[in-house]
Amino acid sequence: MQKLHEGHTKILYATDTPHVSVLRFKDADTTFNAKNRAEFAGKGELNNRISGIIFRYLESEGVTSHYLDTVNRRDMRVRSVDILPVIVTVRNITAGSLATRLGLDEGIRLDQPIVEFSYNRDDLGDPLINDDHAVHVLKIATMDQLRELRRQALLANKALQKLWKKAGLTLVDGAMEFGITVDRQIVLADEVTPDTQHLWIQEDTGAHRDVFRRDVGDAMDVYQEIYERLHDAWPAFRIGELSDVPGEVSA
Amino acid sequence: MQKLHEGHTKILYATDTPHVSVLRFKDADTTFNAKNRAEFAGKGELNNRISGIIFRYLESEGVTSHYLDTVNRRDMRVRSVDILPVIVTVRNITAGSLATRLGLDEGIRLDQPIVEFSYNRDDLGDPLINDDHAVHVLKIATMDQLRELRRQALLANKALQKLWKKAGLTLVDGAMEFGITVDRQIVLADEVTPDTQHLWIQEDTGAHRDVFRRDVGDAMDVYQEIYERLHDAWPAFRIGELSDVPGEVSA
Repeated sequence: MQKLHEGHTKILYATDTPHVSVLRFKDADTTFNAKNRAEFAGKGELNNRISGIIFRYLESEGVTSHYLDTVNRRDMRVRSVDILPVIVTVRNITAGSLATRLGLDEGIRLDQPIVEFSYNRDDLGDPLINDDHAVHVLKIATMDQLRELRRQALLANKALQKLWKKAGLTLVDGAMEFGITVDRQIVLADEVTPDTQHLWIQEDTGAHRDVFRRDVGDAMDVYQEIYERLHDAWPAFRIGELSDVPGEVSA
Repeated sequence: MQKLHEGHTKILYATDTPHVSVLRFKDADTTFNAKNRAEFAGKGELNNRISGIIFRYLESEGVTSHYLDTVNRRDMRVRSVDILPVIVTVRNITAGSLATRLGLDEGIRLDQPIVEFSYNRDDLGDPLINDDHAVHVLKIATMDQLRELRRQALLANKALQKLWKKAGLTLVDGAMEFGITVDRQIVLADEVTPDTQHLWIQEDTGAHRDVFRRDVGDAMDVYQEIYERLHDAWPAFRIGELSDVPGEVSA
């Protein structure tokens, strides 16, 4: 397969089928940008499985994505899209850069979910932008497209809150990317995994564990736990046995 | 007079007249936040004079401000307002933080003026915010108020471009603050001076001098030149002889 793009955590390949690509999950660990990178065996498969469950669940909730199907341990087939260079973050609870930048405590539940756009430029630290920056300065989207991103991101966030809640998890915030299909439809793209969803695991005691700025030594356990919780909570969207990637020797 | 608030460059006093305050310009030099502070004699009077000309000009262009009149070398009388903690920046040409954050060259003329909101918190570096941050996170304005800020800021920017152009100056960007009067009107407040207006002085050669990140050693000359250019270009709004501040010995 021809490699179209390689990022920190995934590789995108072309296929023989028009407008269909393959997204391969690597064993690299990253949180939104170049900081805190690490690697561990099994992460690619877990994120491939988690994304498969989530995209199929979201489709059932009316959120269209690039996802087509899960073909082996590492790969999902996706519709080919032109990725918009905008990271769309929906926040339900104050945390991370929002709290730091605005001088707020972490963990404050917001009255309603809020949306942030960031310019997807790793080298610039993915800076926050407003609508004017996107439309009139960077010219990376139209006002209509931004409205559609906001609408779809809020719809996805609402569905994801429900998804995670049933699995005993709280969605603090989540970063999404969107792409434009060959027929000019804007769809959710990239991945929806613990790399992009900032989660709290609810404890029986009523406390929670924050699994976003996780210790890398425990990361594998966290991905495994999140996968198993989704698998148990949402039987309708389970991913079954998967074959190895052709030509790759399994660990 | 009772001191209500003291900032880097100005002091606000209460007066005996209800809903009227006095704004006193100090000789402190600052550019938007705590960085690059310096002081020089005469700056307070120049900024008081420049603000007087500009607020009276803006009134004639349909931009209402807190300005009432200029009473002596340092003081203007203003309507008492509750300042909204939002810095409204209108940009016509790329420069400064916009260029740095988004990886753009400085000096690119934008297709249309763009508006940025920042949270007015010196200790946080006046961070950029979007509408959701202002309304739903910080709760410092309503969506209707943000729309009104945008409308008034763009109207003021258009008038200010005309003002400066006639004085041989180009407005790169400008930062404004707005306040709410006792009768709930949103009006332009604070000051409009070389401290908040980022200007280029057009040279006869067609080149320009950027007078924003100015060398402090030349700052007095720059303020003097800007004042004289406004004075010459806009005779209708000239500020005449001014008395010393009562009780203050003139330098």
